[in-house]
Amino acid sequence: MHLGTDTVHYAWDRDLAPALEIEGSGTVELDLLDSGAGQFDASSTHESLAALDFTRVNPVTGPILVRGAEPGDALLVRVRELGTAGWGWSANIPGFGLLAEDFPDPVLVHSRIGEKEVELDFGPVLPALPMIGTLGLALPEPGEHPLLPPSRHGGNMDIRQLGAGSSVLLPVGVPGALLSLGDGHAAMGDGEICGTGVETSARAVLEIELVKERPITAPVLETPAAARRTGAALVTTGIGPDLHRAAKDAARSLVDETVRRTGLSAVHAYILASLTADLIVSEIVDLPNYVVSMHLPIDVLS
Amino acid sequence: MHLGTDTVHYAWDRDLAPALEIEGSGTVELDLLDSGAGQFDASSTHESLAALDFTRVNPVTGPILVRGAEPGDALLVRVRELGTAGWGWSANIPGFGLLAEDFPDPVLVHSRIGEKEVELDFGPVLPALPMIGTLGLALPEPGEHPLLPPSRHGGNMDIRQLGAGSSVLLPVGVPGALLSLGDGHAAMGDGEICGTGVETSARAVLEIELVKERPITAPVLETPAAARRTGAALVTTGIGPDLHRAAKDAARSLVDETVRRTGLSAVHAYILASLTADLIVSEIVDLPNYVVSMHLPIDVLS
Repeated sequence: MHLGTDTVHYAWDRDLAPALEIEGSGTVELDLLDSGAGQFDASSTHESLAALDFTRVNPVTGPILVRGAEPGDALLVRVRELGTAGWGWSANIPGFGLLAEDFPDPVLVHSRIGEKEVELDFGPVLPALPMIGTLGLALPEPGEHPLLPPSRHGGNMDIRQLGAGSSVLLPVGVPGALLSLGDGHAAMGDGEICGTGVETSARAVLEIELVKERPITAPVLETPAAARRTGAALVTTGIGPDLHRAAKDAARSLVDETVRRTGLSAVHAYILASLTADLIVSEIVDLPNYVVSMHLPIDVLS
Repeated sequence: MHLGTDTVHYAWDRDLAPALEIEGSGTVELDLLDSGAGQFDASSTHESLAALDFTRVNPVTGPILVRGAEPGDALLVRVRELGTAGWGWSANIPGFGLLAEDFPDPVLVHSRIGEKEVELDFGPVLPALPMIGTLGLALPEPGEHPLLPPSRHGGNMDIRQLGAGSSVLLPVGVPGALLSLGDGHAAMGDGEICGTGVETSARAVLEIELVKERPITAPVLETPAAARRTGAALVTTGIGPDLHRAAKDAARSLVDETVRRTGLSAVHAYILASLTADLIVSEIVDLPNYVVSMHLPIDVLS
């Protein structure tokens, strides 16, 4: 099964017609536009940023309806393959980003994306780290909801480790789940502080599986040994407008998931997280919601 | 030069008599009590937590006066060696920790600390990661200040990567700087969410060097290739009662330090951080101040 970029949409909306329907599980290949929806190319300049049409930012491909999915279930999405284009862009976009007041002027950066490395036009070379910035399910509230902020149903989480080999479990908000994704990055730092990673179009192959009666409060991930920084880990998230509350939510979810997998007591799971987990601000710019993630090494769970 | 545990003190106080004075630079070996100041041992039980004397928590060895240090200077401290005891403790201490309301009951955990691994009494085995929880300088404000919260002069930062091979640059707050340290951990997760790591007594060898006229707003670290998770990195910090503000402070400091080391423009330094830095909540329990750290891989600076 394949979904092309002719299916992109620009809002979360439970009433959007599905681009594809699957029975419970399946493998889907998707083409993803970059977060600028093709408004920039290798000839773009700083001035091109002024012409950016924000109504066409962060497009997602989809939605995929999963028959039988209901609120209270979870959708497990495994990223089997993720390829990016050979060119990418990054930018300081006036008014957007953690330090927006310090950097009022538009700056566009071009990158050459190779198999292993990303070369930025101003010099530095970074390890290539293809990842999906936005992957989520429709919100239960009717109407159109902007794609920029993430929600407890996922979306623009910008979790650096969500690349090939990772999986994510998302809480289903509406019948049919309605999965969409986009916002490929060839590299991205935690927090995506200036508001962009190395933005690029991408091709993803996903395995999708419906997990019945698996209530979770926010996305739960598993990452492979090759995941940048944190390796093979169980990852929980807290998503919302307050970082401290998001950290508490991620910690609570990690306690719950650890107990579920190990049979440890909750307080031992809590102490274990205190002794070895990573606590990362994955996204700090997509207002009003931030993403805090907590990563527990898989090997301590066995 | 050597400082024993007879020099421990229980508050930051600019008027404390120095335990040692050095000229500008020097190497010092220090014995550090554990954060419980020896109130627990291998025979302690959950009930022992009820008897914990909080006035003797988080002792630090020192202070070391550095002649010629003045506000506006920085003190560079390199951790040359860090050894821990063979036994450690962790605890859920009622009323303390990120999820204090979820876990009202005292729980004490014993650990056996080996060269490479830490074995917890309830099963899991973690990589040994010796680090110094508390390392800082006296505050400029007169009087006694509690040791639990960190400040812009360092202190209880609980930065997981502050182990052997790391260095930290601290802003001098008072003439003579007055360096003290303690709170050794054999392992600790980011955030130290339950309020403890694997707490242990320790022995540290530090190289201390006065850097004249180096104004910084908060501690700046460099970590070695072996540093847990983040590897060889330039690390900046934001320390204060608001996580979002602390993240901004860490980001601003990273831009400044990157510009200083590379000659990149500030906006390119900002974009570079967005593309590759780690954004970590290092400490989230030592109220009222949190520590957010931002880690930029050293290799992108060359």
